[in-house]
Amino acid sequence: MSADTVRRSIVLRRRPSGAPDRSDFDIIEDPVPTPGPGQVVTRTIWLSIDPYMRGRLREQQTYAKAIEIGEVMTGETVGEVIASADPGFVVGDVAVGARGWQTHVLSKAAQLTKVDRHDADRSGKSGGAPPISTYLGVLGMPGATAYTGVIDILKPKAGETVVVSAASGAVGSVAGQLAKRKGARVVGIAGGADKCLYVQDTLMFDDCVDHRSIDLRAELAASCPNGIDCYFENVGGAVQEAVFDLLSPFARVAMCGMVSQYNQDPFPPGPNLGFVVGKRVLIQGFIVSDKPERIAEWRQLAAPWVAEGSLEYREDEIDGLENAPDALGGILGGRNFGKLLIRVGLDPH
Amino acid sequence: MSADTVRRSIVLRRRPSGAPDRSDFDIIEDPVPTPGPGQVVTRTIWLSIDPYMRGRLREQQTYAKAIEIGEVMTGETVGEVIASADPGFVVGDVAVGARGWQTHVLSKAAQLTKVDRHDADRSGKSGGAPPISTYLGVLGMPGATAYTGVIDILKPKAGETVVVSAASGAVGSVAGQLAKRKGARVVGIAGGADKCLYVQDTLMFDDCVDHRSIDLRAELAASCPNGIDCYFENVGGAVQEAVFDLLSPFARVAMCGMVSQYNQDPFPPGPNLGFVVGKRVLIQGFIVSDKPERIAEWRQLAAPWVAEGSLEYREDEIDGLENAPDALGGILGGRNFGKLLIRVGLDPH
Repeated sequence: MSADTVRRSIVLRRRPSGAPDRSDFDIIEDPVPTPGPGQVVTRTIWLSIDPYMRGRLREQQTYAKAIEIGEVMTGETVGEVIASADPGFVVGDVAVGARGWQTHVLSKAAQLTKVDRHDADRSGKSGGAPPISTYLGVLGMPGATAYTGVIDILKPKAGETVVVSAASGAVGSVAGQLAKRKGARVVGIAGGADKCLYVQDTLMFDDCVDHRSIDLRAELAASCPNGIDCYFENVGGAVQEAVFDLLSPFARVAMCGMVSQYNQDPFPPGPNLGFVVGKRVLIQGFIVSDKPERIAEWRQLAAPWVAEGSLEYREDEIDGLENAPDALGGILGGRNFGKLLIRVGLDPH
Repeated sequence: MSADTVRRSIVLRRRPSGAPDRSDFDIIEDPVPTPGPGQVVTRTIWLSIDPYMRGRLREQQTYAKAIEIGEVMTGETVGEVIASADPGFVVGDVAVGARGWQTHVLSKAAQLTKVDRHDADRSGKSGGAPPISTYLGVLGMPGATAYTGVIDILKPKAGETVVVSAASGAVGSVAGQLAKRKGARVVGIAGGADKCLYVQDTLMFDDCVDHRSIDLRAELAASCPNGIDCYFENVGGAVQEAVFDLLSPFARVAMCGMVSQYNQDPFPPGPNLGFVVGKRVLIQGFIVSDKPERIAEWRQLAAPWVAEGSLEYREDEIDGLENAPDALGGILGGRNFGKLLIRVGLDPH
C-alpha cells in the first residue's frame, strides 16, 4: 500500500507513570479516511510536541479532556491537503490546525487555517512566506503563549528585570525577546552550557543562568542585582523557589507551565505564599487557547520579524511519527534544544 | 503625677520567638511631650491591635521598617487632642492617625484626621456620627482592606461563590458582607461554634465552616457545591490548602494575610502551584496602605451603612495599655472575637 492509502496513528495504551515513552502507546493502522461534507484530509508534514501533552495523559485534567485509553493522542500538525470536501481547501494546500499523532488527519475545514507555502530556504530570513514549521512554534501556539503572557500579564517596563525559565525553548525564547523589545533587562534560566550560550549570544538576553548550577539562587541573585520584577514561569520546582525568593515588590508572575513536575504524582509542596502579601505579588495562570484571537494577532505581528530575522527561533527535529512518545518524554526532561517537531512526512516544496 | 503629665509607652525588649507576650516588651514612662510647630499631642482613647503588627517584630521585613529594640511599638489610635501647635486642631478634638502603643502620642498634624464625636450610644445604630472606635475597625484600615480586596481584586459576580477566612474578624466580616451586597453566595471560615453562629446569624453569610473541623476540606466542599470562585485569604496554612483544592477555573484570590503562620519561623511549605496554570487562577497580594485614598473613600461609603445598622461589626475590648502585648499574641491565635481594641483612656463623651 502506498503512504496515501494507509494511515498510521498513535493511541494511548496506558497512563504513563513518570516520563512517557513508546511502551505507553500503540501504533495502529487503518485506511486513510475519505472526507465528508465540510471535511478535509491532510497528510501530516510536521507534528508539534509540547509539554502540555503530558497533562492530557492524566486521569484528572483541569482544563481539557483527558486522552482515553485507545484514543489517538492529540497534537497540532501542519499538513498538505490530499482530499477536500470543502470549498475552502483544494488538494495541495498547506494547512495548520489538524490535530493528532497521525500520518493523516481528518478535520472539519473550520478548524484549519490555510498558510502560504514557504518560497525561500528554511531559514526564513530571505523574506516571503515563513517556513511552514514555524506555524507550530515561533508563529504558532508557543509564540502566541509567550506574547499573551508578556503583554497581558507581565507588562514589563523599560529597565525592569524579567526572568524567563526554559529560556531556550519555544515559549521562553519568544517571551524573552519580547521583553527585550519592551526595554527590559532579561535574564534566562536554561539547562546546560549550550543552551545558556544560545540564550545569551543568539537570543541576546542580558544574561542566562544554568539551572543545574550548584547554587542556583546565588547565581540568579548575582544576575539580578535589583531583584526580579517579572517572571515568566515554565518549569516550577527549585527554579520557581529561587525566583520567588528574589521577587521585588509589585512583581508579576505569568504562570505558563511547571514542566519540571509533569511526570510527578503527587505534585510536591510549593513555596510558602506569605511573600505574596508583603510584596503585593501578582501570580496569574493562563492558557493561550482562552484567547484564540491572540494567536492570529501574534502571527500577523511576528511574521515580518521572522522574515527579517529580528525574531530568533530554533527548531529541534526528530524524524518519524513512531518517535513522538519518546520525544514527549524527552521534552519534559529538557532533552530538546528549541521547538520540538516530529517530521512525519516530506514537504515536497 | 496626673495622667496628663506622665506618658507611658510600650517598647520592644526583644524579638519574640513564637507568640509575642508581655515579656517581649518593656513599659517606659516619660513626661507628656509639648508639641512643636505643626505638631499635636493626643491622649489615646483606643489602640488598635492588628495581625500585621507581628511582622514588624521580625528582623526581616518585606514592606515596612521593622521595629527596633527599644523603639515604641506601632499601632493606630483614636485620641483626644490635649495640646496643639497647629491651626487645624484644638484641645478637645478627636483625631485618628496617631501611631504608637502609648498613652499620649506626639504627631505631625498632617498625619491626623479629625473625626466627629459620637452623639449616640455606642451601637451606632441611632444615627449621627459613628462611635469613634469604628475608625480603627469597620470604618478604618481593616474595613478599607476588605473593600479593596473585594472590589479591586475579587470582583465577585452575582451567583459566584466567595469564601472568606477569619470570617468573624475585622476584615473578614466586612469582606463577606460586601460580597453579599454584590449578590455572591458567601461562605465563611471561622474558629469555633460561637464565631460560626455569628457569621451565619448576624453577618448573614450563607454558610460558615469551622476550621477546627475534623475534615475541613470535606465540609468546605459540601458548603461550596459549585466550587470556589473567589477567596479572601486571611489565614494561610491548612485553610489555604483546603480552599485552593476547591477553586474553580478563573478563580481570584485576594491575599490579605496568612495569620496562621505569623508566629512560625521559618514559614512552612505552601501548596503546589500547578493548579494555577490549568485553572487560570489569579493570586494577588495587596496592602491597603498602598492606596490611602481608598480608606477615605470607604469611610464615606460605609459610614451611612454603619449608622443605619446594615453593615454589622463587632468589637472585642481589652482594658489597659499594658495588656496590648498579650492581646497581640492572642489575635494571632484567634482568641479575639471581632475587632480587637485596647481601651487606653476614657472617652469623656
